[in-house]
Formats: sequence, structure tokens, C-alpha cells
Amino acid sequence: MTSIEHLAERQRAFAAERDWEQFHTPKNLAMALAGEAGELLAEFQWLTPEESTKVMDDPDAGNRVKSELADVFLYLTRLADVLGIDPIQAAHAKLDEGERRYDAATYRGSARKAPPLT
Amino acid sequence: MTSIEHLAERQRAFAAERDWEQFHTPKNLAMALAGEAGELLAEFQWLTPEESTKVMDDPDAGNRVKSELADVFLYLTRLADVLGIDPIQAAHAKLDEGERRYDAATYRGSARKAPPLT
Amino acid sequence: MTSIEHLAERQRAFAAERDWEQFHTPKNLAMALAGEAGELLAEFQWLTPEESTKVMDDPDAGNRVKSELADVFLYLTRLADVLGIDPIQAAHAKLDEGERRYDAATYRGSARKAPPLT
Amino acid sequence: MTSIEHLAERQRAFAAERDWEQFHTPKNLAMALAGEAGELLAEFQWLTPEESTKVMDDPDAGNRVKSELADVFLYLTRLADVLGIDPIQAAHAKLDEGERRYDAATYRGSARKAPPLT
Repeated sequence: MTSIEHLAERQRAFAAERDWEQFHTPKNLAMALAGEAGELLAEFQWLTPEESTKVMDDPDAGNRVKSELADVFLYLTRLADVLGIDPIQAAHAKLDEGERRYDAATYRGSARKAPPLT
Repeated sequence: MTSIEHLAERQRAFAAERDWEQFHTPKNLAMALAGEAGELLAEFQWLTPEESTKVMDDPDAGNRVKSELADVFLYLTRLADVLGIDPIQAAHAKLDEGERRYDAATYRGSARKAPPLT
Repeated sequence: MTSIEHLAERQRAFAAERDWEQFHTPKNLAMALAGEAGELLAEFQWLTPEESTKVMDDPDAGNRVKSELADVFLYLTRLADVLGIDPIQAAHAKLDEGERRYDAATYRGSARKAPPLT
Repeated sequence: MTSIEHLAERQRAFAAERDWEQFHTPKNLAMALAGEAGELLAEFQWLTPEESTKVMDDPDAGNRVKSELADVFLYLTRLADVLGIDPIQAAHAKLDEGERRYDAATYRGSARKAPPLT
């Protein structure tokens, strides 16, 4: 069992013990995921790009970022589990596609022509 | 090496080959993550909760959902890597906290008093 | 002066008095807007669609929704002002386009073929 | 009638002619709003803060930003209308609160202690 499968299993038990599966529709989980992504975003909104690279040096800000990132990851894992998607496999498939689409020579140093990763 | 570490390593090489590390500040990656979470959300916005539970039965919608979920996961993994956060460990810490905060007897069946998971 | 222009003018003075114009780049304001949209979203994430139609009947939830909607609107107005966009004019232009694109007879009752509005 | 009321009225007719009121629950509209906020965000994700201040100088990027901002505004107006909220009044109430909370002398030049506007 991978570490993500183990995490998903723990979340499944967590939801079952509280009778919360009824709330965990894909629609609701996608909302919760986007809401947490918004909270993570808020940690960076007034920082310069340079300041953002040092955010973990500040213990308070670092802990908040870690906590929000964990929340996003939890809802992502739960949503993938409910939908029957293997997120690792799906991510590798998108990276394969990215490698075909953005050949290194053409796109070197340019984020304008091509959004990185996808 | 876990499967997430392996994915992060592949993304690191992908960015390096294209000289895209300069764009991958935590601020920018948090934006890209939230943007992709918005695209995932859009797949569910006009579906009823019931319809959302069957979204993978439709091959086209299912593929779009899988692809958007993968995009969110890729940016999450990349952001965690850039920040030096272990997402699996951080997620378990939040689940530990959730178990203390929402004891099963009190919160059974209620999403109103307590947002599930966090 | 329209009511939106008046609001934008008040925000301009608010920012100037605090020397906050330096933080109000379009990039940062787009982040703040998306972050507040995430908070608004969170108010609805565990509600059924039916419950969401009655959210204003609950004074506490109603006030939170009103407050989050106001935050989104404030950042939208500020962003439009900083960019020199007239949001009312831009919205009517999109509605004109929507009317051409989704003729009423073809798209009646269907959100699947066409996302409403845009 | 204010310009926002006029826009809301036009949207009401647009939805009614297509029998789309059934899709326009507050839950769904909050999702659509957040999804569009994510698309607006994506326009700025790889730009430096400085580049973002000049985004309207590029006709293509400028038109995309204007179009996405309009989409956010349309869903905000529609959501406010469905909920019976006056967004202008709600925004002024938040600005009143902001003025009490962030007195100009204390918060001058600092976005760290206090998120601007709210």
C-alpha cells in the first residue's frame, strides 16, 4: 500500500466513524478543496515573490502554510478516493503529456508561451 | 523513496530542463494550484450532488475531472517540494488534530457544527 | 458618478492613507479576490443546493455570506480600478456575447451543453 | 435604478428565457464565481508583480483579463441578486469596518500586520 492509499484509508475511517460520507460528494469535496486552496493562496497574497521563497523561515507563517497545504492535500486525497482516481498515476500521465507538448529546447526560459507543467 | 518523492523529483527535472525554476516561486505555485482547483470546481458547478457522484461514468467528463485533479496534485507536489514540506506527514498531523477536535460521538452526522476533516 | 465609481474612489483614498498602493498590484489583488471567493465558497460547501437557497434565513450564516460577498466585491472593484476596466461595461459586453452564443430555444433547460452566462 | 440593479435585471431575464434559474442556486453560483476567480488568477500567475501592472498594455492579455473580470462580476451580481444582498451597501459596511480596524497611523505601509481592506 502506498502512503497516499494509507492516508485515504485513514480518511475513509474518519468519515465513516462520524457518518460524514453523506457530505463527501465529489461536488462538495471539490468545493472544500478550492476553499482550502484559497486559504493557502491568502498566505502569499501580500508577499513579494522573493519573500514567498523565505516563508518557511518564519515559524508562524511556516506553520500556517504547512497546515493549509495539508488541508488541500487531505481534500484532494479524499476526492480522488471517492472518485476512484489514482492521483499519482494521473499526475505522471499529465507529466508525460507536458514533456511531449513543451519540448525543452523550444520552451526554455519562457513561461509566457507556455504555462509550466500543464 | 515514496511515490510522491518520485513525482516531485520528476517535476524538479522537468522544471530544470526548461529553466522554469525562476517561475516556480511559492507565490506563483500557490496561484497555479488555486487556478487549477478552480478548473476542477468548474467541472462540478452545474451538477447536482447526486450527478457528481456519477461523474466518472461519463468518459469525457471523467477524463476532464481526472486531468484537472492531476493538475492540482502536480502543483501541490511541486509547491510542497519547493517549500520543503512533506505533504503526507503534514496531512497525518492534521488528521490527528481532527480526531482530537471532532470526537465521533459529538459530531456524528453533523457537518453544520464542524467542517469535516479540518 | 456611478455607485461603483464612488466605491472605487473610497477604496483609493483608503489605500492612499495607509500607503498600501504598493501592495495593490493586479497580481496581488487577483490573489486576494480569489482567496475571498474561496471563503465565500466555504460557506456553501456542506449545504445541499436547497439549503443554500435559504442561507439568508439564518442570521449568523446570512451575515457571514454578506460579509464574504462584500470582500469579493471590494477586491473586484479595486482590481478593476487599478486596471482601468469599467466592470459594468465589461459585464454587459459578456452578456451580449452570451445572448448570441446561447440562443434561448436551443439551450432551454440545459446547463450541460452550455455553462450559463459565459 | 443603479447600474448594478440594471445588470442584475438583465441577468434575471437571461436566466428566465433559458429556464436556467434551476441551476442558479447560491451553492452553484458561489462555485461558478470561484471558478471564474481562478481563471482570472491564472492570467497573472507567471507574471512578476511589475509585469502585472502593465497587463492591459498587451491587447490579447488585456482582453482576456477584462473578459475574466467580467465573468467574476456577472456571477457576483447574480449571486447577490438571488440572495437579496445589495453588494454596494455591503461593501461600504466592510469599508466602514476596515477604517475602524486599521487606523491609518498604525498600519501605514504595512501589509504584514493587516491584510488590506478587510
